[in-house]
Amino acid sequence: MINVTLVGTGAVSNHLLDVFSNTNGVAVLQIASRGDQLSQALERMRSRDEEVDIYIIAVSDDAIATVSEHFVKSNALLVHTSGSVAMHALPKEVRRGVFYPLQTFSKGRKVDFQTIPLCIEAEHKNDLELLRTLARAISQSVYELSSKQRKSLHLAAVFVNNFTNHIYQIGNDICLENGVPFDALKPLITETAHKINTLSPIDAQTGPAKRNDDSTIDSHLSQLKSKTHKEVYRMLTKSIKETYESKQ
Amino acid sequence: MINVTLVGTGAVSNHLLDVFSNTNGVAVLQIASRGDQLSQALERMRSRDEEVDIYIIAVSDDAIATVSEHFVKSNALLVHTSGSVAMHALPKEVRRGVFYPLQTFSKGRKVDFQTIPLCIEAEHKNDLELLRTLARAISQSVYELSSKQRKSLHLAAVFVNNFTNHIYQIGNDICLENGVPFDALKPLITETAHKINTLSPIDAQTGPAKRNDDSTIDSHLSQLKSKTHKEVYRMLTKSIKETYESKQ
Repeated sequence: MINVTLVGTGAVSNHLLDVFSNTNGVAVLQIASRGDQLSQALERMRSRDEEVDIYIIAVSDDAIATVSEHFVKSNALLVHTSGSVAMHALPKEVRRGVFYPLQTFSKGRKVDFQTIPLCIEAEHKNDLELLRTLARAISQSVYELSSKQRKSLHLAAVFVNNFTNHIYQIGNDICLENGVPFDALKPLITETAHKINTLSPIDAQTGPAKRNDDSTIDSHLSQLKSKTHKEVYRMLTKSIKETYESKQ
Repeated sequence: MINVTLVGTGAVSNHLLDVFSNTNGVAVLQIASRGDQLSQALERMRSRDEEVDIYIIAVSDDAIATVSEHFVKSNALLVHTSGSVAMHALPKEVRRGVFYPLQTFSKGRKVDFQTIPLCIEAEHKNDLELLRTLARAISQSVYELSSKQRKSLHLAAVFVNNFTNHIYQIGNDICLENGVPFDALKPLITETAHKINTLSPIDAQTGPAKRNDDSTIDSHLSQLKSKTHKEVYRMLTKSIKETYESKQ
């Protein structure tokens, strides 16, 4: 049995609580939140420290250092769940590690943890083994990555999640401006995402920028009303053109 | 029974042939391709013109005008399948229309036509009715749009398909540069696309640009090696910031 204490009340913490509660071999001992009276919460946690195998600090990036300071005297493994914060941001007095689920979580939206990649890291071999056991209990996809690797994966995730979603937003804006239903684009959005499971993005690319079709590009630019949308269109077109020039 | 002649041998024509062949009430009379000896193909087509209800010209945008010229004497309805070409690009001597499936087609990749939005347009009421019947026979999602509306929908599609796929490509490049597996991003890509079925893009947005988290943004920019990737990052970050400033 792996005994886990979850610290934090955000989406990651809630989703982990949900999945651990339904997993054999894992027990969630306590859920500590910053909303608690901190002194009371710490008192409660300290009293059971001996029973805890892993503290999972699932708080926002800039709160990790402060929150984890409260666990310097613990004998348990201390991990955070951030993609972009280094393992060494945790106090050097403790056994340190990282348990980063690479997914976008929204409250109220169910996710299947079995398919979520978990990126793990630990200072000590035994701790890495412990994290591997915990990760494999809930997911089929476990990666052992250094802090540097995880940071670059997180940056790539900003592109494919944050920036992609913003591209959807621009598509939505264009539809609104022209009185056409954004819903008509949803099957295309789904297919574009699914396609890369069988085709690499470089092979899946289509469109005027890849074809060097400047008359269509000019026509698109003249249709766009927003200055920023024009700039985004120009920049991505330039980037696509460069990609295919360099690969030819 | 609606009798259709498909002109063209690209992905759209192949997919339409596939779905029409399996649809009650629709018969594909002939498949004409530009690869045929043109004179022979036209001879063959003209000899059966009386039996044809709709010619579907599924050729590349810049070939539509030339190819459709060969049908000026036909009594059938003549439609093209392009998102960005106006209905009036077809010869004025014939009954004109448009039958535009809004999806990305790749040879060898099966698509479920029932979920593909079909955008239809026709000069005459009866022809619009005919296209509606044909469209509803293969899809649950049929939109009647003007050439102008269709053109703007096609532009929005360039964003959510071409540009999104290129963003995936940049994510792939970052992974390659840093020795991390792009596969780890695929569940995130899928979830990002699925999320907008229940959440609008404006509500689904997360990340440092939305939070105005400039220290994370600076750290990301310093990690990016390619000048163009940096420019794309800056431009999309600017666009996200502007979006949330204007909505506040």
